[in-house]
Amino acid sequence: MRYALLLSYDGTNYGGWQIQKNAVTVQQKLTEALEDTLGYKVNVTASGRTDSGVHAKAQVCHFDAQTSIPAEKLADALNVRLPQDISVLQTVVAPDGFDAQSSAKKKTYCYRVYLSQRRQPLKDRYSVQIKYNVDLQKLEYSAKLFEGEHDFKAYCAAGSQVKTTVRRIYNIEIKKDGCDVAVYVTGNGFLYNMVRTLVGTMIYYSAGRIKEEDIVRSLEKCDRDCVGKTMPAKGLMLESVEYLTKLF
Amino acid sequence: MRYALLLSYDGTNYGGWQIQKNAVTVQQKLTEALEDTLGYKVNVTASGRTDSGVHAKAQVCHFDAQTSIPAEKLADALNVRLPQDISVLQTVVAPDGFDAQSSAKKKTYCYRVYLSQRRQPLKDRYSVQIKYNVDLQKLEYSAKLFEGEHDFKAYCAAGSQVKTTVRRIYNIEIKKDGCDVAVYVTGNGFLYNMVRTLVGTMIYYSAGRIKEEDIVRSLEKCDRDCVGKTMPAKGLMLESVEYLTKLF
Repeated sequence: MRYALLLSYDGTNYGGWQIQKNAVTVQQKLTEALEDTLGYKVNVTASGRTDSGVHAKAQVCHFDAQTSIPAEKLADALNVRLPQDISVLQTVVAPDGFDAQSSAKKKTYCYRVYLSQRRQPLKDRYSVQIKYNVDLQKLEYSAKLFEGEHDFKAYCAAGSQVKTTVRRIYNIEIKKDGCDVAVYVTGNGFLYNMVRTLVGTMIYYSAGRIKEEDIVRSLEKCDRDCVGKTMPAKGLMLESVEYLTKLF
Repeated sequence: MRYALLLSYDGTNYGGWQIQKNAVTVQQKLTEALEDTLGYKVNVTASGRTDSGVHAKAQVCHFDAQTSIPAEKLADALNVRLPQDISVLQTVVAPDGFDAQSSAKKKTYCYRVYLSQRRQPLKDRYSVQIKYNVDLQKLEYSAKLFEGEHDFKAYCAAGSQVKTTVRRIYNIEIKKDGCDVAVYVTGNGFLYNMVRTLVGTMIYYSAGRIKEEDIVRSLEKCDRDCVGKTMPAKGLMLESVEYLTKLF
């Protein structure tokens, strides 16, 4: 039986999703909790990896298991065994042929910044301080340049191994509330560091540090010299993953 | 010269505001940063103590000093020396006769809860999970019972030494956003644990655990057996302190 799982985590203290040496990861903690609950080890697959320090409001995973525990009770059984900064929000029996990674149709990430001359400790865990002026209209304008299908090779950290660096961005939405700015990016998939570099480029553009032709060149010629800096991990959150059928 | 200072802190890792043995406190960290900046020790007075684990969006403090550093530059000088979870948002020269504690006219605290069957790690740092049903209309109704001047002795932790336990609550406002509920309490002053016990009582009432006559009795007869539980510190935040003249 395949189970689908809705997971939320504060990524601050983790080396990202994927199990690795030299760092405690979310996948490791979840795998351990599952083994402790089921009595045997299972593999857990997420919709995608999140990098070290990145948060997830609603990550989706799947695993295969035989258990007498009803699907809806699995969440509580796992939460008893998970640390405070990881929580299973829901567990369901997955539909036929479901795969958390390959069945994912759309993902939405949100990148949060706050515009302030002084550090604000109560915002600082999930949002990044920006000291210089950011022109909201220019931020909106630059968002439009990224929408559609592009080769995002210039926005991908070196060393990542993927078949193609072409991705489609469906929508970039900007919400402002006082000094808080949230950039929601929805696409069919994202490369390693892509959202953080894309938002860094939008912010540089809106602050007048790079020009429109730089962004166009970064997408057309994959020129890494034309992009802004990669923003810190803590401002990034996986907001939602969409599948053809509604799971949760 | 007297300086007034607007301070924000994440109280998670502190034993509250006031300097004490056996715990690192916000007052201690600020006093150390001031001594390091000025070259001599000064006393810092806050609008009021916050308890262990309680946060402040905008605490107000004062201290007396002789320094050639311009008031508006003091904030940055202090922030370089303060830990990440404490930040000085502004420093100004205080008006004549100003005292952060005795000049305070109104304080607003906010208590945050989220209604959810499962723990939500991304809300859990500044908000408290409530698993049972809370009737919003009943919550609003109970708020009205507390407004006005009352003897809040039943809402004050044992062992605190104050001249009077009478306080005036000007207003209690409830804001709901999805599963997030924020209770803003504005008064002329608060006793030790008062907001946390008051909100605990409101929540118990709205969940049908205690009755209107219990609340009335707790205020009229100061009967501690009639109040709800004291809510955890992490959900409480000092939102603002008002003075006759606008300082910041």
